[in-house]
Amino acid sequence: MKAILVICDGMADRPVKELKGKTPLEAAHKPYLNKIAKTGICGIMDTIAPGIPPGSDTAMLALLGYDALKVYSGRGAFEAVGSGLKVLPGEVAFRCNFATVNDDMVVLDRRAGRIRNEDASKLAGSLQKAKLKKVTNVDFLFKSTLQHRAVLILRGEKLSTAVSASDPGKTGERVQTVKALDNSLAAKHTAKILNELSKVFHEVLKNHKVNKERVRKELPPANIVLFRGAGKIPKISPIPQIYGVEASCISAAPLIRGVCKTAGLNLIDVEGATGMPDTNYKGKAQAAVKALKNSDFVLLHIKATDVASHDKNPKLKVQIIEKIDAMLGYILENVDLNITYLAITADHTTSVVTGNHEGDPVPIVITGPYVRRDDIKEFGERSCAKGGLNRIKGSDLMPILMNFLRRTKKVGA
Amino acid sequence: MKAILVICDGMADRPVKELKGKTPLEAAHKPYLNKIAKTGICGIMDTIAPGIPPGSDTAMLALLGYDALKVYSGRGAFEAVGSGLKVLPGEVAFRCNFATVNDDMVVLDRRAGRIRNEDASKLAGSLQKAKLKKVTNVDFLFKSTLQHRAVLILRGEKLSTAVSASDPGKTGERVQTVKALDNSLAAKHTAKILNELSKVFHEVLKNHKVNKERVRKELPPANIVLFRGAGKIPKISPIPQIYGVEASCISAAPLIRGVCKTAGLNLIDVEGATGMPDTNYKGKAQAAVKALKNSDFVLLHIKATDVASHDKNPKLKVQIIEKIDAMLGYILENVDLNITYLAITADHTTSVVTGNHEGDPVPIVITGPYVRRDDIKEFGERSCAKGGLNRIKGSDLMPILMNFLRRTKKVGA
Repeated sequence: MKAILVICDGMADRPVKELKGKTPLEAAHKPYLNKIAKTGICGIMDTIAPGIPPGSDTAMLALLGYDALKVYSGRGAFEAVGSGLKVLPGEVAFRCNFATVNDDMVVLDRRAGRIRNEDASKLAGSLQKAKLKKVTNVDFLFKSTLQHRAVLILRGEKLSTAVSASDPGKTGERVQTVKALDNSLAAKHTAKILNELSKVFHEVLKNHKVNKERVRKELPPANIVLFRGAGKIPKISPIPQIYGVEASCISAAPLIRGVCKTAGLNLIDVEGATGMPDTNYKGKAQAAVKALKNSDFVLLHIKATDVASHDKNPKLKVQIIEKIDAMLGYILENVDLNITYLAITADHTTSVVTGNHEGDPVPIVITGPYVRRDDIKEFGERSCAKGGLNRIKGSDLMPILMNFLRRTKKVGA
Repeated sequence: MKAILVICDGMADRPVKELKGKTPLEAAHKPYLNKIAKTGICGIMDTIAPGIPPGSDTAMLALLGYDALKVYSGRGAFEAVGSGLKVLPGEVAFRCNFATVNDDMVVLDRRAGRIRNEDASKLAGSLQKAKLKKVTNVDFLFKSTLQHRAVLILRGEKLSTAVSASDPGKTGERVQTVKALDNSLAAKHTAKILNELSKVFHEVLKNHKVNKERVRKELPPANIVLFRGAGKIPKISPIPQIYGVEASCISAAPLIRGVCKTAGLNLIDVEGATGMPDTNYKGKAQAAVKALKNSDFVLLHIKATDVASHDKNPKLKVQIIEKIDAMLGYILENVDLNITYLAITADHTTSVVTGNHEGDPVPIVITGPYVRRDDIKEFGERSCAKGGLNRIKGSDLMPILMNFLRRTKKVGA
């Protein structure tokens, strides 16, 4: 027995006037999702807890069966791991942005005009050579990833994730002084490092020839690096160890890749997978089917639904759900459902009205040989609420799937 | 107000091809179970947690309202208590088998030809007189129970349940050396005791006249005792103390009797109750009705459904459920439902396909004067999933029942 878990990022939603009181999922033409609902067992799920909007990282931890509230230790380390870097226990990683500030350190553009990879890479190379003077006994690794995005890893003793961001989060405000968020020496030490790095990086960047060239071309100079999302690698047992399964992840999003890699899943790359509405849906489905040969459990993550929600675009969201439906059609036609369980869900609700993650539950369906098929005929937020799974927690999903694969251990005798 | 809780061991199941896609419970003719569903409130229940296959001991602890994952401390002590022995705090008890080994200590028969009680009792008597040489400061109590089954209790200081079994679990393998499962001195000490007992018992048994007689009759000699299931008595408050009720248990299974006795329930014996498909269903029902006179809460346990499941026999399981249904008919006709609550459930799902305990939820129904009757008309795994209780945890059941009996305490003021 094997299983594919398809997670459609932020697919769940609320009823929308623009869609005549339906949610985007309810409004979409989705013959395959409905077919899966008809043959499966449905329910709704609180990824973290009722009413609590999950982050993408905590949601994924929960969906992999972990107690997210207990093990979560910040986002930065997942981003770093998802970008191909190694983060060791004790190290603290940060999400970084190349940004543009004026002489008063007021942020004018948080993405430095969505600077190209080539420019960002050159700047990062110079920053890596920068020297700290006030703080010793700490090494740093700085690497640009995609466009304005970058990762910073601090290596040394007495480091903490309990520090504020230097990123003010919006334009028109000054770069923030990083502060310790608790009274520990480690937090104070880490804040001090970041504040010095912020200054040293600014010095290197403002005179850099790449930025001089950008100014000449009337592009915003990438003259500051903003830090946020301090994170350590959480202490978790990997999925293969917990359940004795080979597990793989197909996702284009560095954060999701980072969580999955940390949980012991193999990362599978798919050409044309972008994490955007134009992603290679079929390529991802083909990769999932192929991955089943060597993996017992395949997690397939689609980011596009969340992108449409953050853009507050219900019609785009409907279109993306219809593309996901076609993708599921490919999977249905190419896996043996006598020996394969297929589960579809979302990691959280993202409202096309608010553009934010919301704490409403998500729909979930599981089909496969031994499920107690219920009488639900449509896959949707409201129809699934009447299903045979009733209302479960996000961290229940993995044991439920692994139970079908006979991989959960009996408690007691 | 009083309550009867009927627990049908392993009754819950998955849809089975042999029963045209129904579960054994769905396929059974069960007018009384359906009547109870019609007049009651239904739901599904995760005895331990979604997806986690419960053992019989942890399931029973949960159904009695305890946090099984916290209080569980092994099976052996429950077996010993259920067999009429006393186990004190600190003592460690083991489930034992008389078995047959060859000269290389390879197990040929894990049950020594299902040795008769008389033979086993004589052998046990001799073993009780055996002396340990290498280990001092420890006493042991060894007693045969039913056929090849026996119980060993260790009394002394520094004893631990963290030891492996000497029982290899199957024939064709050698008797295992018992090992400490953690680094504690107590675990090492306990392992040492068991390894010496294993040798000393073997010496006594191989020259025993009972075994010489068995060999002469071409019966397998009971020349070894296999140890497994180390357990201590958990520290739990008894049911009468928690809820202020008199409580009784009707069960033929030593393990269930042991858990219930430990939880402060009176054990009621029923003639012809065997723990097998041929058990005295009506006798148990009569005993339950009678027990209501002096008890506020009566737990009635039927083992036979689990036996049919482990034997992978769906048709036998259907027949047993129909016998249980008739038994419930007797109860319905002989208790006053104006002052009595009647709850029916299973302790876990046991699949007739896999023959194992599975982590799928179980159906539950409660009828009685003040339940919020729902519209469920059939008692089954899937029909109950639509019921008014929704999806509850095993440890919720006891407070729910005791609430109807007005025995749960208000929290706060």
